[in-house]
Amino acid sequence: MLKGWQFTGTDEPLVFVEKPMPELKSGYCLIKVLACGLCHSDTSALHDPGWLNLISTPRILGHETAGEIIEIADDVKNFKVGDRVCIWPMYSGIDGTAQGYTRDGGYANYTAAPEDVLIKVPDSVDIVQAAASTDAGMTSYHAVVDRAEVREGTKVGIIGVGGLGRVATRIAVLQGAQVYCATRKQQAKDDAMSLGAYKTADSILDFKDDQLDVVVDFAGAGTTTSDALLAVKPGGRVVVVGMTKLETTVNTNALINMQTELRGSVGGTKESIENVIALMATGDLTINAIETTLDKVPEGLDLLDGAGVPGRLVMRTQDSDFE
Amino acid sequence: MLKGWQFTGTDEPLVFVEKPMPELKSGYCLIKVLACGLCHSDTSALHDPGWLNLISTPRILGHETAGEIIEIADDVKNFKVGDRVCIWPMYSGIDGTAQGYTRDGGYANYTAAPEDVLIKVPDSVDIVQAAASTDAGMTSYHAVVDRAEVREGTKVGIIGVGGLGRVATRIAVLQGAQVYCATRKQQAKDDAMSLGAYKTADSILDFKDDQLDVVVDFAGAGTTTSDALLAVKPGGRVVVVGMTKLETTVNTNALINMQTELRGSVGGTKESIENVIALMATGDLTINAIETTLDKVPEGLDLLDGAGVPGRLVMRTQDSDFE
Repeated sequence: MLKGWQFTGTDEPLVFVEKPMPELKSGYCLIKVLACGLCHSDTSALHDPGWLNLISTPRILGHETAGEIIEIADDVKNFKVGDRVCIWPMYSGIDGTAQGYTRDGGYANYTAAPEDVLIKVPDSVDIVQAAASTDAGMTSYHAVVDRAEVREGTKVGIIGVGGLGRVATRIAVLQGAQVYCATRKQQAKDDAMSLGAYKTADSILDFKDDQLDVVVDFAGAGTTTSDALLAVKPGGRVVVVGMTKLETTVNTNALINMQTELRGSVGGTKESIENVIALMATGDLTINAIETTLDKVPEGLDLLDGAGVPGRLVMRTQDSDFE
Repeated sequence: MLKGWQFTGTDEPLVFVEKPMPELKSGYCLIKVLACGLCHSDTSALHDPGWLNLISTPRILGHETAGEIIEIADDVKNFKVGDRVCIWPMYSGIDGTAQGYTRDGGYANYTAAPEDVLIKVPDSVDIVQAAASTDAGMTSYHAVVDRAEVREGTKVGIIGVGGLGRVATRIAVLQGAQVYCATRKQQAKDDAMSLGAYKTADSILDFKDDQLDVVVDFAGAGTTTSDALLAVKPGGRVVVVGMTKLETTVNTNALINMQTELRGSVGGTKESIENVIALMATGDLTINAIETTLDKVPEGLDLLDGAGVPGRLVMRTQDSDFE
């Protein structure tokens, strides 16, 4: 039986359901879920009716899924039973579904997904890391490499050294960039330096004389974005990363007169995840994951919605989940 | 004698002065001024003390200058007496001076400028057009081609079909772009269509279904910029052009979730002017210029500061100015 946490409607608690195993549609693989990240966006989905435009109900949530393929449809070409995989959380080209949104997701013991959203995970990458790669990893990589265009030698500022900011710092360091981290928290500063950052300071404006090529703003608190536009060198770029619903404003004066550029970044490509997995495979990148279990998904989401968690909260299934 | 309108300090009226002809410093050419555009920024300079950081006094203003070389320093390499030229209004690499800011400008009968800021003007380009190319032309070209990256086939929206917007519309059409103009004024709509625009509407949002690649905002009125970010296609670009001091705000929500991009644009390169002159030489581009005379420069500036002028106001010298 498939067991998982099902969402039925706004402000309704998740319900632990048992369902028949999904039928294997054309192009689909059946996956034994080994890990699934708990995402803050799901806490919004639970309470904000706007999300019903994205999520069809009833739906098992969970879009940061990793596991092992246990069965494949006849026409699956690139995967086989036994492959370790993680799932790109965007829309499938095969049937337009998205994991945990319009197709049952990973807060479960099993899940089924079309092969075009699957990414192979080598044995050297822990499955919890693989799950974390599909959101914190993907979002950070896409922001830093695709949108901010950080390359070897780039001077990049990172605002906000929380979950994504730490991953982004490490990814930027691994690109050969010189990384300047702005955070008020001493622990985050220490972490940034241990991840290979070049300098830390309380505010991005403290790096004004460092001629930053680009700043990636993971705080997105309006003032941080305006400050970033003042901190980058003339002609520089600021990338704002979407994590939560934002209604901030930025001052366009510096933008015009310094000919700077402001870019939004959200989510990421399948290639982002592949690249993150490759960095994880060499041991160069590890996402700080805090593990929980399938039975504790609802309280994990409550924690994200409340006090927060000093890392990425990832559910790892146990043998008993498959009994 | 050199005769021109001299600025002495904030809120002081321009004074018509006579001075000895400037000595020909190394790398300099002496130019008989044939035309000089009157710029709205000079009206700000007259009244806002902040401009004293940019302008050394006493100073003959006028940074949209065109004329004919009548004498050259011994070491001038690329120009000769008799050449028709216009002047790039940015800083010279030879001595760091800027026309009408830290070097006497074109509200005069003669001016002297270093050869690295001079651009040749072919006989087929009227000298009033050449003067207009150095500001309205340069700014529009730089915004449309360099910053907005408009190319053949680009779907580009233009917000604000005033002086710069008209020039930008024509330049975009000449790049082979499909041009969508947003303006509430019927006359401006008609003008845009006659310049080769593809469509016009009251608001840039009316083009939301047209999948615009990029929007250039010449209005920069805050709401126009926010609207532009909602109007472009996902991944599209908005360029805000600096003409006046701006303190507008934009909503970053669309920026992030649609992964759009906001760029500032100000001034332009020497190459921008060269490219504008080339378009003028073929007859494809004409800037709507309204002519005045040297003696009427102060009242022309008053007009710009007040009711405005339906085109670019350009001073053309007369024989009597050289007596």
